[in-house]
Order: sequence, then C-alpha cells, then structure tokens
Amino acid sequence: IDEKNEAEAISLMGELHPADIAEIYDELNTEEAKFLYLLLDGDTAAGVLAELEEDDRERFLKVLPIEVIARQFMGKMDSDDAADIIGGMSDEWQEEILSHIADIEQAGDIVDLLHYDDDTAGGLMAKEMVIVNENWTVLTCLRELSRQAEDIDEIYYVYVVDDDGILRGTISLKIMILSPTSAKISNIYQPDVMSVHTDEPDEEVARIMEKYDLVAIPVIDSIGRLMGRITIDDVVDVIRDEAEKDYQMASGLTEDVESNDSVWIQTRARLPWLLIGLAGGLVSAFVISTHEKSLNIDPAVAFFIPLITAMGGNVGVQSAAIIVQGLASNSLGFESVFSRLLRELTGAFVNGVICSGLVFLVNSFIGRSYDLTISVSIALFSVIIFASIFGTLIPLTLHKMKIDPALATGPFVTTLNDMVGLFIYLSIGAYFLGLV
Amino acid sequence: IDEKNEAEAISLMGELHPADIAEIYDELNTEEAKFLYLLLDGDTAAGVLAELEEDDRERFLKVLPIEVIARQFMGKMDSDDAADIIGGMSDEWQEEILSHIADIEQAGDIVDLLHYDDDTAGGLMAKEMVIVNENWTVLTCLRELSRQAEDIDEIYYVYVVDDDGILRGTISLKIMILSPTSAKISNIYQPDVMSVHTDEPDEEVARIMEKYDLVAIPVIDSIGRLMGRITIDDVVDVIRDEAEKDYQMASGLTEDVESNDSVWIQTRARLPWLLIGLAGGLVSAFVISTHEKSLNIDPAVAFFIPLITAMGGNVGVQSAAIIVQGLASNSLGFESVFSRLLRELTGAFVNGVICSGLVFLVNSFIGRSYDLTISVSIALFSVIIFASIFGTLIPLTLHKMKIDPALATGPFVTTLNDMVGLFIYLSIGAYFLGLV
Repeated sequence: IDEKNEAEAISLMGELHPADIAEIYDELNTEEAKFLYLLLDGDTAAGVLAELEEDDRERFLKVLPIEVIARQFMGKMDSDDAADIIGGMSDEWQEEILSHIADIEQAGDIVDLLHYDDDTAGGLMAKEMVIVNENWTVLTCLRELSRQAEDIDEIYYVYVVDDDGILRGTISLKIMILSPTSAKISNIYQPDVMSVHTDEPDEEVARIMEKYDLVAIPVIDSIGRLMGRITIDDVVDVIRDEAEKDYQMASGLTEDVESNDSVWIQTRARLPWLLIGLAGGLVSAFVISTHEKSLNIDPAVAFFIPLITAMGGNVGVQSAAIIVQGLASNSLGFESVFSRLLRELTGAFVNGVICSGLVFLVNSFIGRSYDLTISVSIALFSVIIFASIFGTLIPLTLHKMKIDPALATGPFVTTLNDMVGLFIYLSIGAYFLGLV
Repeated sequence: IDEKNEAEAISLMGELHPADIAEIYDELNTEEAKFLYLLLDGDTAAGVLAELEEDDRERFLKVLPIEVIARQFMGKMDSDDAADIIGGMSDEWQEEILSHIADIEQAGDIVDLLHYDDDTAGGLMAKEMVIVNENWTVLTCLRELSRQAEDIDEIYYVYVVDDDGILRGTISLKIMILSPTSAKISNIYQPDVMSVHTDEPDEEVARIMEKYDLVAIPVIDSIGRLMGRITIDDVVDVIRDEAEKDYQMASGLTEDVESNDSVWIQTRARLPWLLIGLAGGLVSAFVISTHEKSLNIDPAVAFFIPLITAMGGNVGVQSAAIIVQGLASNSLGFESVFSRLLRELTGAFVNGVICSGLVFLVNSFIGRSYDLTISVSIALFSVIIFASIFGTLIPLTLHKMKIDPALATGPFVTTLNDMVGLFIYLSIGAYFLGLV
C-alpha cells in the first residue's frame, strides 16, 4: 500500500467486501485512505463509505472533492445510507452535494428522507423498492420489475399499491413466477400486510419486526400511502444499540463510548457518574458522622459498612434489572405492581434470611460482641428487603415518567441505596448499643 | 372464549398472527389453551407452537395427543423450529413423535438437525431452501423452483450446487427472471458467497451476518457441501440474547430470569452473587479490623469508607464496560494492551485529579483534620488509578482465558475492588495518622 502500487492494490481490494475494506481504512491515515479510495469502483466505494465509522467518515469526506462525493458515491448509494451521511453535514455542504447529484430522482429521495427524525421509521426507511399497481397483470409487473430492479440489490417483497399510491398488500416473487403471466395482480396479491407509520419510533419498529419475524416492512404516511421500506439489517443495529444502552447505563456511562475514543470523549462520558458517586460518598460520610458516638463505643461498627452498602447495591440492581428486562421485552404482562412487589418481597425474604443467617453464624463464630452481631444481621436483612422494594419500584416509576428505566440499574440508584442502607444500619446499631 | 363459542373464536383467531395468538395463550390456563388450539388450522397451529415461550410450550405439549403433535404440527413446521422443540423433549418422546411424522423427508431433516449443538450454526440452520444444480438452465430451475417452493414461505436466495452437493454460489430470483430461460445457471450465478461451517459458534454467525448485512447465510460441512441455511430472524434472537447476557452479568444475575418467573428460579439466579458479595463484605470487615487502631485515633476515618468503595467500584465497572463492549463489537482493532492501558491511565488521572481535588476542597471547607483530608484525597486518587487498571486488565484476561469478559462488570470484580480499595485507603490513613 505504501509504495502506491496501484494495480496490486486494486486487485487486492477487488476481492474484498466493502465492510472489510472499511476495517482496513480504520487503520490508515487520511492520505493513504484517500489514495486507496479513489482507486475503488463506484459501487464498492459507496459501500465502503456507508460502512465507515462516523468519525472516520467525517474526517475522510473533508478531503474528497465535493463533486466526486456527489457524483460517484451519493448517486450509487442506497437512499437511506446517503440520507444518513448527508444528514450529519452542515446545511451548506448538504446543498452543495445535493446540487451535484445528477440523478434527480435520487436527489429527491434523499431530500425527502432528510425530513424525518433519525429515530423514527421515516429515518430508518429507504426509498429503493419495487412497487406495482394492483390493476396490472403479472406480465406488466415482470417488465416493470426488470426496469425498476436495476437500482435495487435485493428484492424481498414487491409492494402492491392502488392508483392513489395507497399500500394494498404485497406479492412475493415466488407467487409471481408461479402464476400465469396474464393473471391480474389484484387477484393474487397478499392483502394482509403489516406496516408502520413514518413517525413510529425506531424501537417500536424493531419490536414489531422481531416479534413477527419480518425481513422488511413497508412504511406508510398518515393516509396510508407507501413511503418507503425498512429492512431487517437496519433494525438489527437498533436492537443492538438499545440493548447496549441498558448495559451502558448499568455501567455508568452516559454516552456511547468506544475503547478507541479519545481520553476527552471517554472522560466526558464517565465523569458525570463519578461526580454523582462522589456526592453520594460525601453524603454517606455525613450520615456516618452523625453516628460518631456509636463508633466511639465500638469501632467494630465500622467494619461492616462495606458489607451493608455492597449488599444493598447488589440486591437493588438485581431487582431493577429484572424489571428493566421485562419492560424491554414487553413480557411484564398484566400483572399488577402489587403482586409483582409481593413476589419480589418473598424472594428478598428468602435471600435475606439466608444472608443474615450466614453473617450471624460467622460473627458468632469469630466471637464478636452480641450487640454488634445482632445489629449487623438485622440491618442486613432490612437493607435487603428495602433494596428490593426500591429496586422494583424505581424502574417502574421511571418507565411511567417516560424516563429510561435502565437508569435504575446504574450508579445513581446504587448511590441512593448506599445512603439509605447506611442510615438503616447505623440506626439499628445505635439502638442495640443503647444510644437511642 | 370461556363460553366455548367455536365459530366466533375461529373467526377471531383467523385474523390474528400466530405471534399474537401465542401472546393470548400466555394468559390462558392449559384447558382453555388446548380447546382453542385444536380449533386452529395446521399452519397457524404450527406457528403458534413455535412462538410460545418454552415453559408454556412444555406444559402445553403434555396435554396434546402425540399423534396430533406429530402429524398436524411437526409436519407443517420449519425444520429448525421443529428440531428446537423436539430437542427439548425426553428421548422416548422424541422417538414417539418422529415415528408419527408422515413426511419421511421432514422427519429425516429433523433427525439431522438434532445432531448439532444449539449454539452452533448447525443448531440455528433450517433445511428449507431452494437448491439448483449449476448445470441446469433457467427454465429447469424455474420448474424446480415451483416444485420446491411449496414448502418454503420466503425465498431469499436460491443456492447453486455442483453434482456433489458442494455449494458453488447463489442466484437471485431477480437475475433468474431477467435472464433468458435457456441461459445456463453456471454462466449467470454469483460465485462469491459467504458461508459458515456447521460448527461455527452462533455468536460468530451473528457477527458475520451483521457485519455484511446478510439476510440469509448458507451453512456448509467440512468438505463444503450445502447443509442448510440460517435466516436473520433466528440471528436477531442470538444478538439480543448476547447483549442481554452482558447486562445480566453486570447486574448480578447468573441466568436468564424473567419478572414472571417463580420466586425459586429468581432466587437461584440471584443468590450466588449475593453470597459472593457477602463473602467480600466479610473480608472487607477483616481488612478494616486490622486497622482498628486508626479508628481509635480518629473515628472519622470510617466516614469515608463508603466513598472509597463506591468510587473504586464505579471506575472499575466503567473501565471494564468499555473493554467488554469493544470486545463484543470486535472494534478493539490492533491496538496493543499497553497503549490501551496508557490511555485509560490518562483518563483515570484526569478523573482522579478532579474527584480528589473536589473532596479535598469539601473536607477543608468542613474543617476536618488535615491528616484525614490529605489521606482521603490521596487514597481516592490511588483507588481511581488502581480500579481503572484493574477494570481494563480483568476483562482482557478473561477474554484470553475464553471466559465471558462481561463477568468483569458484575459484582465479582466490584467486590474485589472494594477490598483492595479499602486496603489502600486504610494503609494511607494509617501512614498519615503516624501509625506506620
């Protein structure tokens, strides 16, 4: 590559998939990447551009001549990928590039797609699809198909519309091949078709496609006109992002960070949670300081502070995670909050008895004072019960308030749990030490 | 439903998708479900069976006559769904059901599929696909297609094999329709086709299909013969499960629990982590007890125990989560462990300075003793640095040892962090209090 051996590079890359080339690009500097890029043929180049990671792409687009971008790549790209890329640019750039796209139809499609929010069905959909009129015959369709099909890589469904462009149903290529060429579409198409509105949230689209095992779903506007289609590969990204978001929240990261991101980006994603933890720690310090007397009487009270906070945190996060997953997979069903809480409490009771019992045995065995042993066990039991109620109710409440319930499995609630757990422990301790 | 009004129930369910019917079933008791089920036509019944949740299905299959299951449903189901269901049964049941399947070809397919592990490509694949020989003409293919296509709902690709059954490539219906009927397949098929081996792990299959945006992928054996195909809808479940597994590990749940599971199942999934936390808490108690002298001199040392453990835990989990996500999305690239660690340390340094500085200011402002103020700040800084090294190295090490790195974001490592953090804090405290 470094020796700028064109022929070799071309033959090498000719055998690779755009996604693989994009991975190589991640490792190159901008100049090398530009050189290699201009060697690619249009289709592959468009594929690579779509596969690049966002920050690499931005850096990279800046060095390419705008006419090249517009003519060679935007024209060859699927409309949804093109709209995503253009959507990330400044308004000036957008106009400049759009004015250089020779294919007016494609430019129009991109402009249409730019109107939709990224996280709705409209933002996910592409314009490339095969549309036939219900009044046509199979023969007309097959002809139209060969005309329309040039622009489209894969055909999953052929969509059937009426004269007003209203979506009527689908017809599979299989049916079309197996039917006589003179058959009318209106007699053979499949009228029951699942569709989504352009303003449907992307997570809902993902849920529908996953539930019904769909490979593609048509998108309609408010009066039922066919506007585009969403394919499963775009939705897979949504599903993964959604699942990862929960994980990030539980791990205390505010935004999508990758291990290759700069120190600054990583710090920005991490610091807010650390500051919450810090504030919580200072409040905890205050809570303990109000019980300084207990510590003076028996410093061993301090020994069990980490045990109490850790157990409260663990139980709370477990309870919250079960609810969060139930909400995410929509499997909570119609059970009432009350009966859910009751079951959670039964489980907490079992776990509480086992854990407190073990701690009681260990402390008795070591020979700690009876007062301390009994207060630690009672406090541990109370904290486990409290944390499971807290862990169950917080995500349900957040969900009702339309806040992402996964927040409840993160540092925020763990910190709250710490403070309340400490308060319970020290109050019980003070009572058994005869201070109250 | 309760009035056993057959006609109404049939017409009602005729309009519903099997996935919706399966959801209704979740809410019914076994008798009601059985009654309703026997009203469904074969295809829908098979669909519902495949969509039911595993425990519901088991309960349900027990009340149906075995001949009905075999004849009516197994025969109509996709081979992969049928194999999954039969795979969960006892050996006797398996033989009994298989012997009742009239379609010998289907029974053979199911037996073949039972050989593969659930979490490999072989376990995911189905046998239903359209296969053509490379020596045929388009006309022969189209005829063969209409013969084979009866059993298959959707055709994504037509697979091209040679006389030995070795996979040569694919041909799209589009190309077939657009080519003259006399064209030979060997001249028009697409020879570059991505495929996976039967023993490829399912997560790798998911990664490949996601990376290359594939809707279906053929599965071959070790000598390249076409054995089956995997469609994206089966892989979506794998992707979601994988992402959820990370979340569960981070939240301290050992197995896939749902909010509707019984108390016993939930307790089993939660107790192991709680016991680890408990053991950690007892070790922490021991660590603190070795520094009882510090507590006697200044009980305020105890105030900051929760701050230190919470911050160590938060930082460690953040660092680990960034690595775990990088490993999961394969985006770690070729960066060395050393340079990764260096960046992590830079970030930890920034966060450490900010957090320790804030704590220093707060403690000075409140007027705590100089010794304590300085030891808390230095300890906090050290713990943040330590936790980020620990959080980076543990998941990388686990990954090398072929253990799921997400373990590092769960209670296990948080507990380790607690203990080491306490040790650091108390040692520094002892030094500044003049005890060492």
